[in-house]
Amino acid sequence: MKKETEAGFVPIEGGVTAAKGFQAASTAAGIKYSGRQDMAMIYSPVPCRAAGTFTKNLVQAAPVKWDRMRVEEGAAAQAVVINAGIANACTGEEGMRYCSQTAKAVSQALHIPEESVLVASTGVIGMQLPMDRIAAGIHAMAPSLAEGPAAGEAASKAIMTTDTKNKEAAVQVDIGGVTVTIGGMCKGSGMIHPNMCTMLSFVTTDAAISRDLLLKALREDIEDTYNMISVDGDTSTNDTVLLLANGMAGNPEIAEEGPEYEAFCRGLRYVNETLSKKIAGDGEGCTALFEVQVKGASTKEQAKTLAKAVITSNLTKAAIFGHDANWGRILCAMGYSGAEFDPEKVDLFFESSAGSMQIIENGVAVDYSEEQATRILSEPEVRAVADIKMGTETATAWGCDLTFDYVKINADYRS
Amino acid sequence: MKKETEAGFVPIEGGVTAAKGFQAASTAAGIKYSGRQDMAMIYSPVPCRAAGTFTKNLVQAAPVKWDRMRVEEGAAAQAVVINAGIANACTGEEGMRYCSQTAKAVSQALHIPEESVLVASTGVIGMQLPMDRIAAGIHAMAPSLAEGPAAGEAASKAIMTTDTKNKEAAVQVDIGGVTVTIGGMCKGSGMIHPNMCTMLSFVTTDAAISRDLLLKALREDIEDTYNMISVDGDTSTNDTVLLLANGMAGNPEIAEEGPEYEAFCRGLRYVNETLSKKIAGDGEGCTALFEVQVKGASTKEQAKTLAKAVITSNLTKAAIFGHDANWGRILCAMGYSGAEFDPEKVDLFFESSAGSMQIIENGVAVDYSEEQATRILSEPEVRAVADIKMGTETATAWGCDLTFDYVKINADYRS
Repeated sequence: MKKETEAGFVPIEGGVTAAKGFQAASTAAGIKYSGRQDMAMIYSPVPCRAAGTFTKNLVQAAPVKWDRMRVEEGAAAQAVVINAGIANACTGEEGMRYCSQTAKAVSQALHIPEESVLVASTGVIGMQLPMDRIAAGIHAMAPSLAEGPAAGEAASKAIMTTDTKNKEAAVQVDIGGVTVTIGGMCKGSGMIHPNMCTMLSFVTTDAAISRDLLLKALREDIEDTYNMISVDGDTSTNDTVLLLANGMAGNPEIAEEGPEYEAFCRGLRYVNETLSKKIAGDGEGCTALFEVQVKGASTKEQAKTLAKAVITSNLTKAAIFGHDANWGRILCAMGYSGAEFDPEKVDLFFESSAGSMQIIENGVAVDYSEEQATRILSEPEVRAVADIKMGTETATAWGCDLTFDYVKINADYRS
Repeated sequence: MKKETEAGFVPIEGGVTAAKGFQAASTAAGIKYSGRQDMAMIYSPVPCRAAGTFTKNLVQAAPVKWDRMRVEEGAAAQAVVINAGIANACTGEEGMRYCSQTAKAVSQALHIPEESVLVASTGVIGMQLPMDRIAAGIHAMAPSLAEGPAAGEAASKAIMTTDTKNKEAAVQVDIGGVTVTIGGMCKGSGMIHPNMCTMLSFVTTDAAISRDLLLKALREDIEDTYNMISVDGDTSTNDTVLLLANGMAGNPEIAEEGPEYEAFCRGLRYVNETLSKKIAGDGEGCTALFEVQVKGASTKEQAKTLAKAVITSNLTKAAIFGHDANWGRILCAMGYSGAEFDPEKVDLFFESSAGSMQIIENGVAVDYSEEQATRILSEPEVRAVADIKMGTETATAWGCDLTFDYVKINADYRS
């Protein structure tokens, strides 16, 4: 284990195969893309406790319904099969049949119970999956399952759609003197506005932890991570976060809240926050990660509502693309967010690696340099900090700029 | 009066000067734009009853605060002064001082009480108005006030910002055997997502109607007109609808609900709906008006929530730009709207002047021709109709497509 950071965890290289005993495989199944891998599988020979959170969209993809059922009944999980290209959403009964056929095929290939197979899909809504190619993909992947970073990285690439970068994160924490690893991969670039959950994210850990605490840790963590990002305001039909724990680290099982549980949560937060920021920073067509922090709020909820309104505002996002310190749009978005505050008390700052500067004091512009503001806003990661001076609560949200390429990608996506 | 339509009203040419006794003027005050008119004035020598609805954004421009105060205290209105280029929002006490200075200048120029002057501004947030130019503009306009369509049209052009077309509508209704005229003009193209109100719209009528009913008619009408449009999801700080009635038509005063009040409301609806559609169809950078009708709803509220979610969805808007029948995005937006419905009962149709076709039946795609769908979606006005089969309520919302030009306009707007 590397040197521990102040926060009590150590970021490491790797992703979904970073934790002990987790294997991955991927293949080019030809579901919709050609010339690239488009299916992935995660596998743990040791059965896992599983936690999951899913889209709150009323229109839910078949795999979302399938996984929710499995997680709620408390089935031990051993494998997750993911395909890119077709979302298996709005596919009626046929779509559900594909989930059970997929589980059956994995069960046969890996000799594990059907109930231990989770599924996830991402891509075009409304098309039916080509079951023959899915089945062929499963049989191609089963013998090639492998531990180690290369297999994890290949899997994280196979689940990309309009993503331009694969997304992984991993961390180690000390729990009762034992090193526990948490690692994950995710995908997401458009139709990103998670509501109580997120796009596709798969996090694995070798921690021994009770099912109740695993569920609680995930449920609480997504509120400050995936639920605080937005690319385009569109909450997907397929949003899914799965967290699998196989206990192979050998730590004394975390069975109650206390220092060990908190250490686990800090590690989980690091992985989920890192993956969330990677999604926001790789938003469709974007050129910049846009982070908004609201501080001085009287409640956490108020801070979150304000921060999310700003990162979701199309006009603010377009201004960020133009490197334009158009702060009126930020105040405007805060104003229509639904959260109460006094616009005439707001201080606003812009920050990036090029510097930091105050733009507004008590709701009115200070005498700032437009050139300096443009310089700060021209970096690949920019940040706005609003102090509303009502209390001590803080929240951060992550989004990206709105660009020509976002429109191009989404005007052409199906063709 | 022309031939009456079935609905009991007759659309006519004209705008804010269509009703008896209303005059308009405009001028190039050089507030921010050069080489074009950027100030307008509406005037009625006969004092008017005034109704107004204003943005629900917590951040409210100074003129919004000013007009709300005047309308609530029931002051008789005689003049409205409007400028384009600077919004007079986030301008603190100085911004409020400009409103009273403007009222004073108009009062002196037209010899009317200061309390009878309403003001409206649109443009960049956060800049202070150049009061000397505003005052010079008022003194230039006062002597050139004129009745008739030319003055009304010039005023409607002077209040444009990123609008590409001026927006007017007028109608005549028969009230107790007397022809009453209602006419209006509006502007709006970006930062359009009215919440309980709208951008700048000025409607005048020569109807004699009690103040209570004038307020009620406006308050109820905006819910189905301005409040059902969106260009970009950003609720402005300046949204204002003013309705002025000078009674010059000579009809028996409408003092209670009944056939005369209903006739007035039908005429008002025509004007407001026409102006609303003109705003949506001239959304920043757009190439198409996108109308969404939800029918078969169990409540009006449910139908509205669903229709607005679809026209607000960036992904759906980008698909319309691409003439792509990407119906999954429509169902997805309905799903995250917050309204309850059964996705597996939804029928969806696309319509335009190029034809009409069914796309989904009971939540699943029918076997439709993509070519025909693209043909239908390539017209300048396209329509999606969703039947959710739960009841008999219907609502319509209007938006537009999301294009490269929307991004271009808003990445560059301040420069």
